[in-house]
Amino acid sequence: MNLREETLNENIIYEGNILKLVNQEVKLPDENRAFREIVRHSGGVAIIAFIDDENILLVEQFRKPFDRNFLEIPAGKIDKNDIDYKIGALRELEEETGYSTQNIKFIGKIAPSPGFCDEEVNIYVAKNLYKRQILFKDEDEFLNLKVASLKHVKKMICKGKIIDAKTIAAIFFLENI
Amino acid sequence: MNLREETLNENIIYEGNILKLVNQEVKLPDENRAFREIVRHSGGVAIIAFIDDENILLVEQFRKPFDRNFLEIPAGKIDKNDIDYKIGALRELEEETGYSTQNIKFIGKIAPSPGFCDEEVNIYVAKNLYKRQILFKDEDEFLNLKVASLKHVKKMICKGKIIDAKTIAAIFFLENI
Repeated sequence: MNLREETLNENIIYEGNILKLVNQEVKLPDENRAFREIVRHSGGVAIIAFIDDENILLVEQFRKPFDRNFLEIPAGKIDKNDIDYKIGALRELEEETGYSTQNIKFIGKIAPSPGFCDEEVNIYVAKNLYKRQILFKDEDEFLNLKVASLKHVKKMICKGKIIDAKTIAAIFFLENI
Repeated sequence: MNLREETLNENIIYEGNILKLVNQEVKLPDENRAFREIVRHSGGVAIIAFIDDENILLVEQFRKPFDRNFLEIPAGKIDKNDIDYKIGALRELEEETGYSTQNIKFIGKIAPSPGFCDEEVNIYVAKNLYKRQILFKDEDEFLNLKVASLKHVKKMICKGKIIDAKTIAAIFFLENI
């Protein structure tokens, strides 16, 4: 069956700093009409960064939607000035951890919530890290840098202590590609 | 460092069918103020459903935010009438695939986009499926049911043909818990 939904109208409900909300009227495959609420997002990058053979960098951040701290791999939104995703990944890695590298490789891409949001997260693996001075940082971003073995991170995922989708996907890509 | 952000004000920007958008003014750890755009979502369930020892059910759906078809494991939003998540998972499985089971088990939970959205997806594995008549179905939901081996699904993920986060996480949980 052809599943395509044709856009008939689009209303912008909100245009903010990190997202835009639109309401689309669509024509369904059976010719009926429906409305789709869609969040537009710039997309992001995430980096699984090895500090040595076994251990990776994690950032602890307060995630306001859940009103609690989350443990995640370093990540961030794509900036309109980023020439490509890899530049964005290096910027976020440095901004959040103070580390940089010349050994960074794309391993996979995820759509966190394709039902209502067009966000894509490009995931990288980084090795041979070296310490850099932190040159720039989002002024409203606070975090604690942590180090944990990949094995321990997998345990925390299995116990539900880490539930961040990009962190889980990063390990999947790392172990399967 | 204590990372807590205290809510000072909350404005509801939009309240729709599947999501609610709010703007919160928060007090940061350094006492400065910032705004947080937050999408409130009911949360969902996803089911990795084995039709035999090797093959799982996939649904092909048109995902309007991307204006293209996606291959994903069966999934859906939690309904306010669902007594618990498992009931919701069985309902979505039946609604999207026509199958039901008495062998369904929680394997893990993900937060797809904790930076701006409070959505959580509870993931289940289902086995010993039996065909049921489809009793109810979302009237604006169209999909094609597919069957693929777990091995082939993993290949599609590694090639970027499946990018849905809950599908990737489901396989991670399946193979690691």
